[in-house]
Amino acid sequence: MARTKGFEPERALDRAMELFWSRGYEATSLRELLEEMGIGQGSFYGTFGDKHALFLATLDRYREAAEAGAVATLEDGSPKEAIRAVFGGMVDVLAGQEEPRRGCFLANSAVEIAPHDAEVGERISRYLQSLEDAFERTVRRGQATGEIDTRRDPRTLARSLVNNSLGLRVLARTGTDRRTLEDAADAALWPLG
Amino acid sequence: MARTKGFEPERALDRAMELFWSRGYEATSLRELLEEMGIGQGSFYGTFGDKHALFLATLDRYREAAEAGAVATLEDGSPKEAIRAVFGGMVDVLAGQEEPRRGCFLANSAVEIAPHDAEVGERISRYLQSLEDAFERTVRRGQATGEIDTRRDPRTLARSLVNNSLGLRVLARTGTDRRTLEDAADAALWPLG
Repeated sequence: MARTKGFEPERALDRAMELFWSRGYEATSLRELLEEMGIGQGSFYGTFGDKHALFLATLDRYREAAEAGAVATLEDGSPKEAIRAVFGGMVDVLAGQEEPRRGCFLANSAVEIAPHDAEVGERISRYLQSLEDAFERTVRRGQATGEIDTRRDPRTLARSLVNNSLGLRVLARTGTDRRTLEDAADAALWPLG
Repeated sequence: MARTKGFEPERALDRAMELFWSRGYEATSLRELLEEMGIGQGSFYGTFGDKHALFLATLDRYREAAEAGAVATLEDGSPKEAIRAVFGGMVDVLAGQEEPRRGCFLANSAVEIAPHDAEVGERISRYLQSLEDAFERTVRRGQATGEIDTRRDPRTLARSLVNNSLGLRVLARTGTDRRTLEDAADAALWPLG
């Protein structure tokens, strides 16, 4: 469809994502979305459908970036250092956000929306599975070179890494200090050996 | 204040908690609360104040029971088995809920509400701190007898246990199968030795 003068769908999508991420799905009203996105109701419905469809689009946008970032980091260089880098980056983001306690948009949506909404749940599960798969590939790579403890089952270890990463995202929502996040992240790497 | 005939505040509080736990804070309307609690608007305001005050009361009720349960389990018997029992019990509850994916009321509230609401945030932080303290006492007890690996810092190990328990509560919201929850819970105990 033709663009309205001055209306950039990608930018509007990013602004909607920021709002959903800050406030959650339920607490964000259509009126606030229109204001934040700087568009009228007509353009909104024509381009994005409705609030729910817009939410799914923002979730896809975030998920693709998060997945690509983690996978790229995990496939590069020393397996153990790659896993350490993923956790270090996560703590940096969670502890350093301009808006404190914003956490992770996917984890927030998992807790707030996933149980009641199959389309959201399916997207979150797909993300968690791809993160688990990427961790498992990296663990196997590290076990093959002896850099990672071979006594640990790689799938279980990958699940543990996913689980720990989700815990950090909840801790961040409660305003946990950086030092505690770092402690928990360090401990998540202990089983690597 | 005098009780309205047939109105039991404790039971009404429990029903409100179930509703908030199932639906979240924002998605639960006052109308639904009144219906679920079986009381009129007058009794509601007279007894509970408003929706927010009621939410805090339900959170306190849940928190006190959760805290007491975990602390009692952790202080009893073998330290390592006590920690295992806490995680085993958590997986049983998370995987076996009549309403699937209901998760944990405290973790759900931490993610949905804590960042925007100091009174909720303070309650969640207090719960997490008391859980961390209880884990730390148990770890120290286990290290003193040699049952738990003494190379691990007890505070860091306690933080890791809290972090892992929070991860499980997010995984449960996404409909993760019992086997995966068990794997992640098993791995949380690896650092105990």
